[in-house]
Amino acid sequence: MKNINSTLIFENKPSIASFGAVVGKKEGEGPLGKYFDLCENDAYLGKKSWEQAESGFLGESMDIALKKASLSKDNIDFVLSGDLMNQCTSSGYAARGLERPFFGLYGACSTMAESLLLGSVLLDGGGGDYILCATGSHFCSAEKQFRTPLEYGGQRTPTSQWTVTGSGAAVLSRKECPIKIDCATVGRVVDWGIKDANNMGGAMAPAFVDTLNRHFKATNRPLDYYDLILSGDLGHTGKSIANELFHKQKMDISRYFEDCGVLIFDKETQDTHSGGSGCGCSASVLCGYILPEMLKGKYRRILFAATGALMSPTLTMQSETIPSISHAISITIE
Amino acid sequence: MKNINSTLIFENKPSIASFGAVVGKKEGEGPLGKYFDLCENDAYLGKKSWEQAESGFLGESMDIALKKASLSKDNIDFVLSGDLMNQCTSSGYAARGLERPFFGLYGACSTMAESLLLGSVLLDGGGGDYILCATGSHFCSAEKQFRTPLEYGGQRTPTSQWTVTGSGAAVLSRKECPIKIDCATVGRVVDWGIKDANNMGGAMAPAFVDTLNRHFKATNRPLDYYDLILSGDLGHTGKSIANELFHKQKMDISRYFEDCGVLIFDKETQDTHSGGSGCGCSASVLCGYILPEMLKGKYRRILFAATGALMSPTLTMQSETIPSISHAISITIE
Repeated sequence: MKNINSTLIFENKPSIASFGAVVGKKEGEGPLGKYFDLCENDAYLGKKSWEQAESGFLGESMDIALKKASLSKDNIDFVLSGDLMNQCTSSGYAARGLERPFFGLYGACSTMAESLLLGSVLLDGGGGDYILCATGSHFCSAEKQFRTPLEYGGQRTPTSQWTVTGSGAAVLSRKECPIKIDCATVGRVVDWGIKDANNMGGAMAPAFVDTLNRHFKATNRPLDYYDLILSGDLGHTGKSIANELFHKQKMDISRYFEDCGVLIFDKETQDTHSGGSGCGCSASVLCGYILPEMLKGKYRRILFAATGALMSPTLTMQSETIPSISHAISITIE
Repeated sequence: MKNINSTLIFENKPSIASFGAVVGKKEGEGPLGKYFDLCENDAYLGKKSWEQAESGFLGESMDIALKKASLSKDNIDFVLSGDLMNQCTSSGYAARGLERPFFGLYGACSTMAESLLLGSVLLDGGGGDYILCATGSHFCSAEKQFRTPLEYGGQRTPTSQWTVTGSGAAVLSRKECPIKIDCATVGRVVDWGIKDANNMGGAMAPAFVDTLNRHFKATNRPLDYYDLILSGDLGHTGKSIANELFHKQKMDISRYFEDCGVLIFDKETQDTHSGGSGCGCSASVLCGYILPEMLKGKYRRILFAATGALMSPTLTMQSETIPSISHAISITIE
């Protein structure tokens, strides 16, 4: 592994051996519905609380990823996982059932990228054979924790995003598999002073632009090196701000720029305003739609740059601004 | 790096180049008071909220560690940090001021060990020259978030622990320095069914024992290999349970077994019941007391096994049991 200006170049190029994605009913009815491994109609997953269901979604996507790679949990060297819940409980409780060495991560909606990044660092350095990376989120538990109880029926602003109910999991491997991670740029905490917790896209866009600028500078790759630059969940608002920020730098990435939060819901019919968000958004879109499409030949090189807004309701109530982060992972198919 | 049954053996043995610890008034009045770099009498650190103060403690310990290594923040390749606050805000907001690539971690009170562990993985694999690892906690923000508002004056149970106001930071380096990290055992999530959120020691002790058993088996080291086995913050209750669990296995580590939560407060005079806890407990004891004492020759080989209870108030209210984790880091001086 080499570090060129905070971009880690992986000498052994960890493979993504398998992946799985499980989503809720609304996500299943969206434009990507047919791509996910499983769409669950019951938001409770038969459990007693949304928090337990969120943990259950994580467990299901992990199981699918393991099964697709013909692995059992005992084959896994490390699990890297995180989520949006206070004290990252959905991943902690999901990891309890695995009984494997575990690293808890927190990068808000960027956590899937953080998990793939640190998983690649572990594999590249010889730390193991198989690493399980997974994140998830749940609309109902997130609304209850971050905003207002669902029963309150609060109005949503036009820039607000809809937390995805779902989870994505990927197994990283040292074995030769078609899809590989060749390098990754680690995000910095960027804060341009946005205070509106209902405008996470606006808060996260500068972090996304910062990471991409550093990525292209460090790798010396042309802007059109990638077939697809996939932001985590900037949503419609954040995506348009990011395009504008690049435009001011006289860069145009709009032709190959997509956003997981934009892709997962239909803006016209699903009433999700600025699009999807949550750790489960970029994880399920990457693991359920993008990686399978890579195998089918649709994309050859993608830059997966998940984004996270690192605020909390407590700090928002204290009039603090919203720090954000974005980690970018270069994923290629050979 | 090699992985022997979840124990990572670092071939390049990352050094701990410097360290700093800042604590609050009560910690400064405790048995280790004279060892810390700085004792702050103002729990607010001159800021408007306890949450902002918690972030401030983290920033101060980072600054001290950087200064002692004659480094500026620009020399740092990566920052690895986490805390107990919802959405890990004290570390996210502290990292904002650093403008360096950042990994947010969550391992409850075990986070300092997780941060040193992943920092070592990054350095060992060639990921950089200097890595800043830091965690912190604050009694007032933790009570408000996890228990009851301070003004309520809630009674504390005998097994309850007192969240340390403070922070510890360490700079890991590829350069030759006396103190080195030679290997580390990654924790698993262990849950023996404890439901009492005021008995974290009881919940965490089995995770500590699990990690130590796996560590000694993987390394083939005798029990007395270490001068000191330092648990994170099992407190008096958890320490005595851990001793009992080892006793049942016909192992006796009691001669060289200390606990950060036991060391930091005086049981008789400071009214902290089972002792200290919080991400800042093991971080400040390690960085303020243990590592400097290693340099003075008191310890040659220590096993730092911080422990974390991965519960949240929400899950506790749902009658969930408390999953726990412990990561163990072998630190030696040459």
